Amino acid sequence: MEFMDELRFLKEQLKFNEKVDVPPGASEVVIAGMGGSGIAGKIFQELFTEFKVHLIDNYAVPKFVSKSTLFIAISFSGNTEETISAASQAARAGAHMVTISSGGALSEMGDQNIKIPRNDIQPRSATGYMLIPLLKGFGVISKSEINESYGLLDQLDKNDEECKIHAKNISKKSLIPVIYGSPPLCSIAYRWKTQFNENAKVIAYSNSFPELNHNDTMAIAQTYRKDEFYFLVFGSDASKIKKRINVTEKATKSRFNMINPKGSSQIPRMFYMLHYGDYVSYHLGTLRKVNPTDISLIEKLKKEIK
Amino acid sequence: MEFMDELRFLKEQLKFNEKVDVPPGASEVVIAGMGGSGIAGKIFQELFTEFKVHLIDNYAVPKFVSKSTLFIAISFSGNTEETISAASQAARAGAHMVTISSGGALSEMGDQNIKIPRNDIQPRSATGYMLIPLLKGFGVISKSEINESYGLLDQLDKNDEECKIHAKNISKKSLIPVIYGSPPLCSIAYRWKTQFNENAKVIAYSNSFPELNHNDTMAIAQTYRKDEFYFLVFGSDASKIKKRINVTEKATKSRFNMINPKGSSQIPRMFYMLHYGDYVSYHLGTLRKVNPTDISLIEKLKKEIK
Repeated sequence: MEFMDELRFLKEQLKFNEKVDVPPGASEVVIAGMGGSGIAGKIFQELFTEFKVHLIDNYAVPKFVSKSTLFIAISFSGNTEETISAASQAARAGAHMVTISSGGALSEMGDQNIKIPRNDIQPRSATGYMLIPLLKGFGVISKSEINESYGLLDQLDKNDEECKIHAKNISKKSLIPVIYGSPPLCSIAYRWKTQFNENAKVIAYSNSFPELNHNDTMAIAQTYRKDEFYFLVFGSDASKIKKRINVTEKATKSRFNMINPKGSSQIPRMFYMLHYGDYVSYHLGTLRKVNPTDISLIEKLKKEIK
Repeated sequence: MEFMDELRFLKEQLKFNEKVDVPPGASEVVIAGMGGSGIAGKIFQELFTEFKVHLIDNYAVPKFVSKSTLFIAISFSGNTEETISAASQAARAGAHMVTISSGGALSEMGDQNIKIPRNDIQPRSATGYMLIPLLKGFGVISKSEINESYGLLDQLDKNDEECKIHAKNISKKSLIPVIYGSPPLCSIAYRWKTQFNENAKVIAYSNSFPELNHNDTMAIAQTYRKDEFYFLVFGSDASKIKKRINVTEKATKSRFNMINPKGSSQIPRMFYMLHYGDYVSYHLGTLRKVNPTDISLIEKLKKEIK
């Protein structure tokens, strides 16, 4: 599949009909996943706060993992070294295991194994397949939210001019993207960073309000190379955050390029912002004449590390 | 206090004799804190995995917070807007509340209120005061570890030549520090980033192995402006991580400036690495002729946002 088609394919994943079966009495969830497969857990943790959701992006699981843990291991390939290691540990601790993968060793390790129906796309293009079973399983997404999200993604698929303009601005002066989110979109700011890394092959970094007011603020006011950064800042409806954004921009004499989420509730807004970053990073990659799908180095590393 | 004296004062905080009283039967901890007061929770979460430790750096608390939650609110001033808001919400949910502060509104909100005995230093210079009550309360630190940590901090206080060299390398070409940690020092890599922001007033960013192998890797191999970054990478004893560091450095044709932790167990190693970053960022600030203690903009923001 062409990478542009992969991007357009996200909206179809909203219709994915699998969901995590949550065992009765469960109250604590641990989600393991790396990189493009880890982002689903990060997004879910921000949206669902009724359970204690703990994330793992390493080989080992915390000591508290036990029989009463619902452990969800996510790996697109099903063969991610860190995730297999963590899932094996959790299984030994007696955790109830759910896996989400397109195959591989992981696809047989769970009490429930959710199968992603295709493996011919990039892991980071399969976010819908990995996120929907979580959102549906825990009752976090409604039919109308799925429909609204579909419409918003479709809009972006048909018109991404705004995204292209940001990519051009960044490309023209070889700027470093800095992405500032705020709750409940901190994970999406991080997703943009990783998409800039993988699709455009540029260094980028993300942080979020209000935390960044306690550290980044001093830096962006007085740093050297100030003109070499491009600030992409997510708009917020929360009055406190809105004020922080305005005051920070003025006080640090920065220029914030605002991206305002569309959507009537947090799920559609999340999907819209997620997809917006897909396009900005994709276009930057194209302008830089790098291949957005090339992650050969990550694959090479995986082999060499084994 | 001169800022250099504040840095030297960290080791004395190891002797702080207060500790969190953990209620019998507690198994879940939520820690709220921002910036320089939030770092204690981040460090603690990495070192103590017997309980579910959930962190908050925002106004709101997760819905799962209840009577069975041990809620620890940390704010050096005791007046941090976000932390007061989160603590008030947690109190309404009936959580058992412990506060750590030098005074302010927070210092009267807890079932237990731990008082930091001085308020004449920067919040980020009081990490010992905020971290020790957690480590002692949950039995994570031994007397011999305190003694070893004291010795290591004292060594750095007497000889920080290596730290100065990194600061000079960074300053000479106005480079952007990129700090790469790995478990259990991911929080320390983030601490370095925030210290670069506040002490040296430069933009910096952190990430950690193995997660960075799934995104940053592609970027640092092919990014523009490659020569404008300065990679500070924490050494690790874990064989998998060690291998990842070596392979990544070669495959991306980067130059990693390695910092190897000293200490015989993870607590002294953590304190050594924490303090190492204090000095690199402090010296960079001095070389840049900025005032390391100046956080006037953060203070100004706090007032304007109210």
